[in-house]
Amino acid sequence: MNKIVTFGEILLRLSTNIGERLFQTDHINTHFGGAEANVAVSLSKFGHDVYFVSKVPKNPLGSAVERHMRLHGVHTDFLLKGGDRLGTYFVESGVGPRSAQVTYDRKYSSFSQLTLEEVDFERIFSGTSLYHVTGITPALAPSMKEIVLYSLKKAKEFGITTSFDFNYRGKLWSQQEAAETFKTFLPYIDICSCGELDALYLLGIEQADDSLEKNEKLAYYYEKIQLMYPNIRWMSSTFRDVISASSNTLQGNIYVDGILYQSKVYPIDHIVDRVGGGDAFTAGILHGIIRKKSPDEIVTFATAASVLKHTIHGDCNVFTEEEIQAFSNSIPGKIVR
Amino acid sequence: MNKIVTFGEILLRLSTNIGERLFQTDHINTHFGGAEANVAVSLSKFGHDVYFVSKVPKNPLGSAVERHMRLHGVHTDFLLKGGDRLGTYFVESGVGPRSAQVTYDRKYSSFSQLTLEEVDFERIFSGTSLYHVTGITPALAPSMKEIVLYSLKKAKEFGITTSFDFNYRGKLWSQQEAAETFKTFLPYIDICSCGELDALYLLGIEQADDSLEKNEKLAYYYEKIQLMYPNIRWMSSTFRDVISASSNTLQGNIYVDGILYQSKVYPIDHIVDRVGGGDAFTAGILHGIIRKKSPDEIVTFATAASVLKHTIHGDCNVFTEEEIQAFSNSIPGKIVR
Amino acid sequence: MNKIVTFGEILLRLSTNIGERLFQTDHINTHFGGAEANVAVSLSKFGHDVYFVSKVPKNPLGSAVERHMRLHGVHTDFLLKGGDRLGTYFVESGVGPRSAQVTYDRKYSSFSQLTLEEVDFERIFSGTSLYHVTGITPALAPSMKEIVLYSLKKAKEFGITTSFDFNYRGKLWSQQEAAETFKTFLPYIDICSCGELDALYLLGIEQADDSLEKNEKLAYYYEKIQLMYPNIRWMSSTFRDVISASSNTLQGNIYVDGILYQSKVYPIDHIVDRVGGGDAFTAGILHGIIRKKSPDEIVTFATAASVLKHTIHGDCNVFTEEEIQAFSNSIPGKIVR
Amino acid sequence: MNKIVTFGEILLRLSTNIGERLFQTDHINTHFGGAEANVAVSLSKFGHDVYFVSKVPKNPLGSAVERHMRLHGVHTDFLLKGGDRLGTYFVESGVGPRSAQVTYDRKYSSFSQLTLEEVDFERIFSGTSLYHVTGITPALAPSMKEIVLYSLKKAKEFGITTSFDFNYRGKLWSQQEAAETFKTFLPYIDICSCGELDALYLLGIEQADDSLEKNEKLAYYYEKIQLMYPNIRWMSSTFRDVISASSNTLQGNIYVDGILYQSKVYPIDHIVDRVGGGDAFTAGILHGIIRKKSPDEIVTFATAASVLKHTIHGDCNVFTEEEIQAFSNSIPGKIVR
Amino acid sequence: MNKIVTFGEILLRLSTNIGERLFQTDHINTHFGGAEANVAVSLSKFGHDVYFVSKVPKNPLGSAVERHMRLHGVHTDFLLKGGDRLGTYFVESGVGPRSAQVTYDRKYSSFSQLTLEEVDFERIFSGTSLYHVTGITPALAPSMKEIVLYSLKKAKEFGITTSFDFNYRGKLWSQQEAAETFKTFLPYIDICSCGELDALYLLGIEQADDSLEKNEKLAYYYEKIQLMYPNIRWMSSTFRDVISASSNTLQGNIYVDGILYQSKVYPIDHIVDRVGGGDAFTAGILHGIIRKKSPDEIVTFATAASVLKHTIHGDCNVFTEEEIQAFSNSIPGKIVR
Amino acid sequence: MNKIVTFGEILLRLSTNIGERLFQTDHINTHFGGAEANVAVSLSKFGHDVYFVSKVPKNPLGSAVERHMRLHGVHTDFLLKGGDRLGTYFVESGVGPRSAQVTYDRKYSSFSQLTLEEVDFERIFSGTSLYHVTGITPALAPSMKEIVLYSLKKAKEFGITTSFDFNYRGKLWSQQEAAETFKTFLPYIDICSCGELDALYLLGIEQADDSLEKNEKLAYYYEKIQLMYPNIRWMSSTFRDVISASSNTLQGNIYVDGILYQSKVYPIDHIVDRVGGGDAFTAGILHGIIRKKSPDEIVTFATAASVLKHTIHGDCNVFTEEEIQAFSNSIPGKIVR
Repeated sequence: MNKIVTFGEILLRLSTNIGERLFQTDHINTHFGGAEANVAVSLSKFGHDVYFVSKVPKNPLGSAVERHMRLHGVHTDFLLKGGDRLGTYFVESGVGPRSAQVTYDRKYSSFSQLTLEEVDFERIFSGTSLYHVTGITPALAPSMKEIVLYSLKKAKEFGITTSFDFNYRGKLWSQQEAAETFKTFLPYIDICSCGELDALYLLGIEQADDSLEKNEKLAYYYEKIQLMYPNIRWMSSTFRDVISASSNTLQGNIYVDGILYQSKVYPIDHIVDRVGGGDAFTAGILHGIIRKKSPDEIVTFATAASVLKHTIHGDCNVFTEEEIQAFSNSIPGKIVR
Repeated sequence: MNKIVTFGEILLRLSTNIGERLFQTDHINTHFGGAEANVAVSLSKFGHDVYFVSKVPKNPLGSAVERHMRLHGVHTDFLLKGGDRLGTYFVESGVGPRSAQVTYDRKYSSFSQLTLEEVDFERIFSGTSLYHVTGITPALAPSMKEIVLYSLKKAKEFGITTSFDFNYRGKLWSQQEAAETFKTFLPYIDICSCGELDALYLLGIEQADDSLEKNEKLAYYYEKIQLMYPNIRWMSSTFRDVISASSNTLQGNIYVDGILYQSKVYPIDHIVDRVGGGDAFTAGILHGIIRKKSPDEIVTFATAASVLKHTIHGDCNVFTEEEIQAFSNSIPGKIVR
Repeated sequence: MNKIVTFGEILLRLSTNIGERLFQTDHINTHFGGAEANVAVSLSKFGHDVYFVSKVPKNPLGSAVERHMRLHGVHTDFLLKGGDRLGTYFVESGVGPRSAQVTYDRKYSSFSQLTLEEVDFERIFSGTSLYHVTGITPALAPSMKEIVLYSLKKAKEFGITTSFDFNYRGKLWSQQEAAETFKTFLPYIDICSCGELDALYLLGIEQADDSLEKNEKLAYYYEKIQLMYPNIRWMSSTFRDVISASSNTLQGNIYVDGILYQSKVYPIDHIVDRVGGGDAFTAGILHGIIRKKSPDEIVTFATAASVLKHTIHGDCNVFTEEEIQAFSNSIPGKIVR
Repeated sequence: MNKIVTFGEILLRLSTNIGERLFQTDHINTHFGGAEANVAVSLSKFGHDVYFVSKVPKNPLGSAVERHMRLHGVHTDFLLKGGDRLGTYFVESGVGPRSAQVTYDRKYSSFSQLTLEEVDFERIFSGTSLYHVTGITPALAPSMKEIVLYSLKKAKEFGITTSFDFNYRGKLWSQQEAAETFKTFLPYIDICSCGELDALYLLGIEQADDSLEKNEKLAYYYEKIQLMYPNIRWMSSTFRDVISASSNTLQGNIYVDGILYQSKVYPIDHIVDRVGGGDAFTAGILHGIIRKKSPDEIVTFATAASVLKHTIHGDCNVFTEEEIQAFSNSIPGKIVR
Repeated sequence: MNKIVTFGEILLRLSTNIGERLFQTDHINTHFGGAEANVAVSLSKFGHDVYFVSKVPKNPLGSAVERHMRLHGVHTDFLLKGGDRLGTYFVESGVGPRSAQVTYDRKYSSFSQLTLEEVDFERIFSGTSLYHVTGITPALAPSMKEIVLYSLKKAKEFGITTSFDFNYRGKLWSQQEAAETFKTFLPYIDICSCGELDALYLLGIEQADDSLEKNEKLAYYYEKIQLMYPNIRWMSSTFRDVISASSNTLQGNIYVDGILYQSKVYPIDHIVDRVGGGDAFTAGILHGIIRKKSPDEIVTFATAASVLKHTIHGDCNVFTEEEIQAFSNSIPGKIVR
Repeated sequence: MNKIVTFGEILLRLSTNIGERLFQTDHINTHFGGAEANVAVSLSKFGHDVYFVSKVPKNPLGSAVERHMRLHGVHTDFLLKGGDRLGTYFVESGVGPRSAQVTYDRKYSSFSQLTLEEVDFERIFSGTSLYHVTGITPALAPSMKEIVLYSLKKAKEFGITTSFDFNYRGKLWSQQEAAETFKTFLPYIDICSCGELDALYLLGIEQADDSLEKNEKLAYYYEKIQLMYPNIRWMSSTFRDVISASSNTLQGNIYVDGILYQSKVYPIDHIVDRVGGGDAFTAGILHGIIRKKSPDEIVTFATAASVLKHTIHGDCNVFTEEEIQAFSNSIPGKIVR
């Protein structure tokens, strides 16, 4: 079994119960998560040998992160300890018409102050077959842009398949800054998670013809991206229809060899916790690619994985490959007894 | 900033968790609320200087009411202490097809035994610009009818804008008794919250032509009411479509200068706690009128306020003006991050 | 008032909160239930004099079962104590698209090791007017088949009306074994709960014409069953449309004197706990038959009872006859105050 | 088995969690209890056939009281339904140095407004061997004094053994009023629960010599009481040493035939819920007398019963005779496995 | 009523339930507190007009702090909004032999980055009679030393009584740095909270003769301090005997006019939450001084206030003057009913 | 780092909250534990490479056991999957004078039906330095006696240090059967956990002179055991004084080279969860022996580990070596901040 490596920040999430405003009661729920950490957990559940590279403080919070990753079978050999603090964020959970409200307290985190010298990518990448990182990481600090770029180049030197999820966050940086940064990364990427908005606002691709269907538009954007970056072999994304904070529909897309493959449309009602839903999808895509499944199988599996994530508290997709496959074959909601 | 005064009873609400019958477990949820108290809290959240006039027992329950109002910024200078008890009610919360069941234990409450001599309306109304009371108050005791009528006349002497919410409760008195009482109040009212059923069964207005649309019917009733009581400048109400105890739609109406203005129709699914939803709407209407907004803005804001209230436990609308406006401009359910 | 007797196993159910996987947290919910025990509880709530015949271990779990039945007014005079253990099962509660997952730990239970000698049916059936048993009981052990058959024959000797619910469970035995067993019972049955799948796969009835409507098909199967077993006077079942684990629709059917009567279709969204929903329906049917109501009344009442059960935690239908009737006459979700 | 009858009020208790002030959180704990109801439950647990005579409102709270009594095996044939409300009280639970604070809201309760005509003591007392009432009942209303006196006289007519627990509550009436009332009852009492303070302040007995030990003083008071009321055959009480709200010691006393028998002194640390501890003791005394045990056995059993009650939430002593005996023979705190 | 002003940081405390390690479960308890904030709350509960001066971020956490202070009646007119974050700390609650473990995450807080220019002490001190600050504030940043010194000098210019609590925290700075800083403050202090360790390690006072009793030693240190700083009129502290994390004893001391006055020794078993216990004591001292009570009354009241604080969750002493006085006169643990 | 192997059963524990009887509420707490599993977890926390050998069912309960062990860093390579069920037990938690009550439901467990053929001790023991098993394992089935004996002989063949904890459970087998079995094991044991009762009732050693102190008696028994089994180099046990279910004292003993070493006596008040306290002690002893610490250090560390375990919910000692050492050097109950 070859190694998979993900690199990024992990945060403490403090979220209210449904129907409560922040600090309306004296209790709050705690979870650990981050885009790359969540992908690592999913891939470990799917039976891969996964290493999560990050930095957390040398205190009980850092230890809790370590236990969290280990509980889910992820290796923490490259989880550095030190720095000032663990990034934190507060979520006032949404319900029905009311959206979740996120308040970040992630500034000065140990991870955001990481330097290139601290990370031994030579050692980390030895024996690695897949490397995954997202657009959140370079948004955290100017030095992070360099580290990510360095790591991607290094990964290609090692012949590693690279995966990049745009994950653009408007609260962290401007579209322009993100665009400039991402363009330096994309020549080194094999698998890319991005969608229509990324194509339009970050890659500056001309808007698709309005007469096209939603899927045709997406295929058009993916075609254009692949023209710009022929190294990108797989592109994926989801169509999410937000009926309310408690009810969404989800459909997965994967684009490979010039063809867009789509899963069926899943209604998700009601949603327990949508945080990490995108990461579950990305992990499903990566799993399918590693296992050399057909594009149809890949997108079906990834979408089912993401749907299931929405039905569980916490950022992590705690379902096995078998459970996800059973789910994608079953009638939703039916008890077997 | 001018004073706002509301006058009415506040109760202890004891309600079960979703999916539990009363006393199925050994735990119950506690909230304080009452129509006029809830309007006071909302208006305080919107930045007004609000005084709640009521009477509660001189014991830890009375003190808890005081803390509750103060937490939400409402002045309690005119909250009298004394009498036998705090009115209480028990709610077996509804869910899906099953409606909530209310059991009242409000008889003999300190408020219901209040006498006119105890309330110094001269002092209370000094510097006041708006006075709000509802049809629940006069239903509590015969003496209450007199007190409310006295207070309304006194308010007009002080040149105060008056607001009255019909809030007819069939468990407290007959339609006939309510009708007779309300008719003595209406000549002193500027802003009135009432709807089709009130027009038909309490004001005896002839039924609207069945071929009319729902909104046309309402406009017809409002027109008739204004003919009877030309002093009433604003009338408002909501259309609520009860799909289930967990799912409603809500649309707000305001009638002014002969025109009915309507908000869009909001689906609310799923509802966390609908108690206080009407009070949040009324407070939104009053806020808009005070702030001299356009009727369209008023009804949009009031409806959004009411919708948000449905997504939070407790009787009180704990959202600020900014949050409600952000909500009414946003796509429901979307996380910003 | 005549006695009603039900005979079957009662289990401890350990179920997660919504949105949790099994053992994701350190807490789990406990309920007691079993098809025949649940029917007994419902009938007791409806005012009948009900005896539950079963066997539980002589330890605090057995005592808890006894208290559970007594809380709901069911007589435990014939609840034997002894044997190794109380059957247990674990439920990972479903939500939205994700179904509940059931893990049984019921092997070696005190009930499954019961012998015919232990049960004094002569004494039990004295003064009894109705006897109810389901297809789960004979699936538990070969000896159980004999006991059930013996009890049915004995019941007919006593002139008792008999009720049988197919309740086929694929996790307990094969279709073939169930079919052979049930066919020995059916000649002694007056009231039978079964549906299309039972007719097709257990009774081997030829498939209905595909051009028929769902209700026409059911009437066809019931007609065929009655030809085979003319002793069966009433047959009943529900049509359940599973939109998701949180949202179902339910419609009740009863067939008597060659005519199929149906309730209206109830949407149930969201479902609190659907375990015991079928038993609530069956109990409603039995209640209506005992009370000699019209088929329309029977099926309306039974379906309303089942719908209400879905809105409450636990296996038991804890609603009274009055509450169910009020519900079936009301607008779902409306608060009365 | 002969009937036991208890007569008194049952209340809803709403109590905070340890370490919380009233309404500091949005949750509160619910229990039902009352001196005579609690004694009824204990005696039922000990295997007696017990009837609780009281009046509760005809609403879900009244039904909950009924279920509560039935869960514990007490007959509710004579539980009247009607009147305005169920008495309620709020408890801010004590801990360590801080005492519990009780706020009553029991005025206007259905029970306190009961009239003599409503209670058919002839029917109730038919077949009864023991009748128990406490000094709380006559404190609730002037008419209650008459009802209790009537019931005691009637009980003696039926040849029933009578039990009376002083239970003087300074929040309900004056010492003088209680004294006058109790003196009319005592000529009809066989078993009496009272202590030093009752002897001094209610019966006006001269203070014991200060040089006497605590137990000698008690024996002196009991001797004096028996001189005044030779009909009283058994007198009992407990010595409670309050170290803190969380830690008490308890020792039981029974006086019969001129001799005071005492249990050992039990430390209780920490206390879970002391409400109902006295009622558990009284029930233990009554059980022992009915079973004709020796005074030593009686007081040992009653004290052990009371100690165990302190270790359980709720007013009711939910331990069986076997469990209490096992406890009084065991080393406290030792696990058997 | 004259104004009281306190100046300091307020933090979010995240603490585990008893018997849980940090992040052993997915839930954590939230409280807001800080030495000067807690004193402000207590003094407000005692009926004073209190202003809390601090800086919190302009986000939902800052708003929650505002609500927290307002709930307890403290004015927030001088609560600045801005900066990066709210200081946070995590507490693994202690129990029995295991001590609580504190993990700070307070670096970069809005308060610690406050500048002198932001605080308008002229306006704040107008009409003020008492100013309270602690030794935590100057430990947070070098600039804070200057601000505190400036504020003390300014207070004396305004003729304000000043109060200073050493509150030395070894996790924030060295003894030497604290000593140097405190010595610049002390010439401006009227009321001082400090103890033996402060005298020895921060003020460099020679160790007391070992043959002295604990209280004699303390009197010796206080005498020495007063010789160094004759402006300090009152000094106070507590003797705490830590039997375990769940059980302490507490005795209060106040030194005035050359005499040490002591409260009785209170056992506190078991402790609910000791955070804020010292602040409750200090507030009690300040209250007594303002109310010009006798030293004996002051120390009795302050100690009782502190003891009660230990019996409640949260940092705040939520007891009124009447409740504290009732407690100091009562038998601990006794229920009044 | 050399391997450590433990072999035994792991059970699901279902325990009530403090102050609740079994099934008094609808919630119960879940933990996994077993003597050998708990020792494995502790040793892993102390930095050792530990393998737990056992058998659990191939279902979600088996998977949960696997996750539980992995969360704590224990290797599950030799955790077999199969068989009927996971042993379960119910605990009614004790408090104050009331002891915990244990109800076992462990019959027919997968582990108890394990056969020798299933366990590949050759592979398991390869590279192993320490093997630990307890007297519970052979009590589960006759075949288990053989497996344990086989494993011990095999371990000695591999030159592995062996550890045996008597752990006699009277609910599982007779003293005579245990004695016969243990005597076949003891010739192969290097480290033994046993005490006075084991010496007297299982090994038949003559009672010590009554004039001896407790520790002298223990030394006497250990001397006698070593005469019988000179291969046993280390013997250990604890003295536990049970003041109540909430309060114990604990003192550790180790005997080596003819000398008994004792820790200080720790009061533990109040106890959170004492299950697993003995296993924490044993693991501490093994850790000290492996690390070649002095007997004084060993017994101090092991006792401190056991004391800390009592302050945490669950069977597992989740403290690190550093935390335990810090604890054994600290003043209990003191907060560091």
